[in-house]
Amino acid sequence: MSVSGEMILAGEFVRGRGAPIRAVDPASGLEIIGPDFGAATQTDLERACAAADAAFGPFRALAPADRALFLERIAEELGGGSTAIVERAMAETGLPRPRLEGELGRTITQLRLFARVLRDGSYLEVRVDQALPERTPPRPDLRLVMVPVGPVAVFGASNFPLAFSVAGGDTVSALAAGCPVVVKAHSSHPGTSEMVAKAIVRAVVACGLPGGVFSMLFGNGAEIGAGLVADSRIQAVGFTGSRAGGMALLAIAQARPRPIPVYAEMSSINPVVLLPCALRQRGPAIGKAFAGALTLGAGQFCTNPGLLIAVEGEELEGFVASASEALAVSAAATMLNQGIYRAYREGVERLDRHPAVTLLAQGPDRGGWVSRPVLFSVAAADFLSDTTLRAEVFGACSLLVRCRDIQELRSVLAMLEGQLTVAVHADGADHDLAAGLLPLIERKAGRILFDGFGTGVEVADAMMHGGPFPATSDVRSTSVGSLSIARFLRPVCYQNAPDPLLPAELRANNPFGVPRTCR
Amino acid sequence: MSVSGEMILAGEFVRGRGAPIRAVDPASGLEIIGPDFGAATQTDLERACAAADAAFGPFRALAPADRALFLERIAEELGGGSTAIVERAMAETGLPRPRLEGELGRTITQLRLFARVLRDGSYLEVRVDQALPERTPPRPDLRLVMVPVGPVAVFGASNFPLAFSVAGGDTVSALAAGCPVVVKAHSSHPGTSEMVAKAIVRAVVACGLPGGVFSMLFGNGAEIGAGLVADSRIQAVGFTGSRAGGMALLAIAQARPRPIPVYAEMSSINPVVLLPCALRQRGPAIGKAFAGALTLGAGQFCTNPGLLIAVEGEELEGFVASASEALAVSAAATMLNQGIYRAYREGVERLDRHPAVTLLAQGPDRGGWVSRPVLFSVAAADFLSDTTLRAEVFGACSLLVRCRDIQELRSVLAMLEGQLTVAVHADGADHDLAAGLLPLIERKAGRILFDGFGTGVEVADAMMHGGPFPATSDVRSTSVGSLSIARFLRPVCYQNAPDPLLPAELRANNPFGVPRTCR
Repeated sequence: MSVSGEMILAGEFVRGRGAPIRAVDPASGLEIIGPDFGAATQTDLERACAAADAAFGPFRALAPADRALFLERIAEELGGGSTAIVERAMAETGLPRPRLEGELGRTITQLRLFARVLRDGSYLEVRVDQALPERTPPRPDLRLVMVPVGPVAVFGASNFPLAFSVAGGDTVSALAAGCPVVVKAHSSHPGTSEMVAKAIVRAVVACGLPGGVFSMLFGNGAEIGAGLVADSRIQAVGFTGSRAGGMALLAIAQARPRPIPVYAEMSSINPVVLLPCALRQRGPAIGKAFAGALTLGAGQFCTNPGLLIAVEGEELEGFVASASEALAVSAAATMLNQGIYRAYREGVERLDRHPAVTLLAQGPDRGGWVSRPVLFSVAAADFLSDTTLRAEVFGACSLLVRCRDIQELRSVLAMLEGQLTVAVHADGADHDLAAGLLPLIERKAGRILFDGFGTGVEVADAMMHGGPFPATSDVRSTSVGSLSIARFLRPVCYQNAPDPLLPAELRANNPFGVPRTCR
Repeated sequence: MSVSGEMILAGEFVRGRGAPIRAVDPASGLEIIGPDFGAATQTDLERACAAADAAFGPFRALAPADRALFLERIAEELGGGSTAIVERAMAETGLPRPRLEGELGRTITQLRLFARVLRDGSYLEVRVDQALPERTPPRPDLRLVMVPVGPVAVFGASNFPLAFSVAGGDTVSALAAGCPVVVKAHSSHPGTSEMVAKAIVRAVVACGLPGGVFSMLFGNGAEIGAGLVADSRIQAVGFTGSRAGGMALLAIAQARPRPIPVYAEMSSINPVVLLPCALRQRGPAIGKAFAGALTLGAGQFCTNPGLLIAVEGEELEGFVASASEALAVSAAATMLNQGIYRAYREGVERLDRHPAVTLLAQGPDRGGWVSRPVLFSVAAADFLSDTTLRAEVFGACSLLVRCRDIQELRSVLAMLEGQLTVAVHADGADHDLAAGLLPLIERKAGRILFDGFGTGVEVADAMMHGGPFPATSDVRSTSVGSLSIARFLRPVCYQNAPDPLLPAELRANNPFGVPRTCR
């Protein structure tokens, strides 16, 4: 499978005439991996959006089971090209083979999950209120179904070049919903993006779908990304990335003559609450596990444990010693790109210079774009008085907040912003304490987990990967799991429609066998 | 039941010290209906929001069945005070008794519907992915439930002083979700608002709930309304009103350090598509029914048919003649307040002066704040070239767009903004034509109805009262029907939580008997 540097415009391979994008090997930080990737022009963008809009009608009209076949075909195409895709992704991202193999597996699982969702049909939330002609006044026949919102813009994320990129969760949930997708590829892994995009195009062709169902553009965020969000044909946006990036897209979407929803997963420091009895029982084991979670993928996880909260005391020291020891010998891990590496370095240096912050432990310094994991400590009183200490440092950096007592720990929780996850480490003897904290924790987080870390995000029906602002821009949304399809659907009610004019999902004979709630 | 001019702050009756608001009898346009209603100060606002925040924990923890009892108690209290409430509302709004009796009935029905929703429990969308410890990697136990977002600000609407006001759909769906509510009462019907608020307070007391579950403030939108949306404790906003008003609230909500969702139902002209065979078969009957729908409630319905679209020809003339005849003799109807009356007059005069617009028919001129129904006509080519003709004129004003052919009718549909409703009048012989238009219509509307008008909005499970912008600010939301509760809920996932620490809805023994999807 070769990489040509071409974009996908409505099913065709097109070389962009904008300033070329080049992939850089993060291991050296120097070597350019060919070829050049031509960036999109406004004309390319226009063409992709027009094609997506034209494809929406036929794609929306497809039976859910046929869209399921399309998703499964993408899964097959990705599986068939897996070795080449993983190797290209390794070169472009510096992530190790097992991690990328796992991530491709997850991407494929995700496609199959949505095929199952489509066949199940409950995502359509069909509701039927039958006519009551005898009632005063008569009740009309009312039938509600979820319909796709229209073409969706998806931004590839740098930290998961497969599972949150071209064929990642946003693309797959949008396609499952019946929305054509225009991807703005992340410039950190253009070759991987191209290979994955071509796999999708093969599936589009194999399933006889209109080319406009899927396009992928190269280009920078300020021009092509912004232009995509501003395009009147785009009806929703999926984004995973920085807070600044998400907020910029949100501002563009809200300034449109017709504003659209932006589902931006942005910023989370994923607090870990360490309760006293758990620390006493197994502080060192938690410390070791924490170091493992912190350094996973060079800390480049949205759910990376960036904040630890505990009451000071002897039982905390076993945790600290064990975590410090593990971090000091942690393996080297190359970061994804120069921008992320620099931001990480600056974030760590800012904490290091902060007068109230103490360095507890750090990993070996290895040069290059290599992450040096680090654990800092701060007294809760200082943390409470300086909101800059709540800012995310993307990478393997964490801050332990030492509280005088549980009341102060509550205050720390209360002042936090919204989070993707909050983890609680609690022994049986901590449960009363935990029960008292949970109502507060629930107001802050999309996922609350016990005796572990949030880094593993299961692709499942019950997963919630979202949370109060700034974890996401839309607190009602998840970007992982089957519920993520809801972002790209909206309800429509048909009233007193003649049966042949109803969408198939609502007809009396229920040709797709969709589950219904009837009254 | 007396009206004292007091607000409700966390269960207490408090006289606001802000500049008083006075109710004016719209029938005379002059007579002030006592007493003075003291407007809220910033201190009152602060107190209401703090109490709502404090009440959130206990209110959220209530079993759904107990919240159902609370809603039913509100229904009983409203039923008990119905005569006095209806009479006060008649005096303040100029709406006739049968209409207000019907509206109070609807308000009560709405409360009972949500009690049923709470007992049913499927609104919680509980999903359980059981642990798979043998899998590589092991799958954790994942349990998802919808939880309330937190305190909600609700803005009473002027046009439905009961069903979309203090105890209207926004309040009831928020309370059902488990969210305390702070209402900004509409200044057009402060006495009605006070009476309804007191009924809610009696239910709060009877059910032993914390007073902060419900507050109601008097005041103007620019100060008290804006302050409410900006308050950090408010987590979502429900609003029905003008486009300018909704957009102003949206801007405030988006400029907060932590943005929140605004569910604003704003502007819709509710196009009515008249297809040729239906016109030929029953044009005069449709015309008469149209005049009835247009003048209902002096045209002050969000779903008022403000636009008619048809192909020119002989069959259209029967419709026009019959509609014109009915409008010419339509009954007088007082408008809700001076602002609405003036805006209506100005909107009608703007159309009347427009060189491309022809006056087809109007009702008798009666003086006072009385609506004069009016029907205009314009050629599609002119309509297509002037976007100002798409603006809503709130009241009994409609514009017939005459199209040369079906292709031009399609163009008119294509250039429309989002709508709450699109009505299609189609005979059997029009069905092929209708089928070709429906995909386009579906992109524009939240509800598509046949052979009727959108003015009746059934409170039901399958109702969708929302639509693409500017019909609502959030295309995924409805403000009527059981699905409206979803606006005030967000998903939370519990991972590997010890059973006693789970919210009751998720525990193994399922104490509330909530329906679950398990895998």
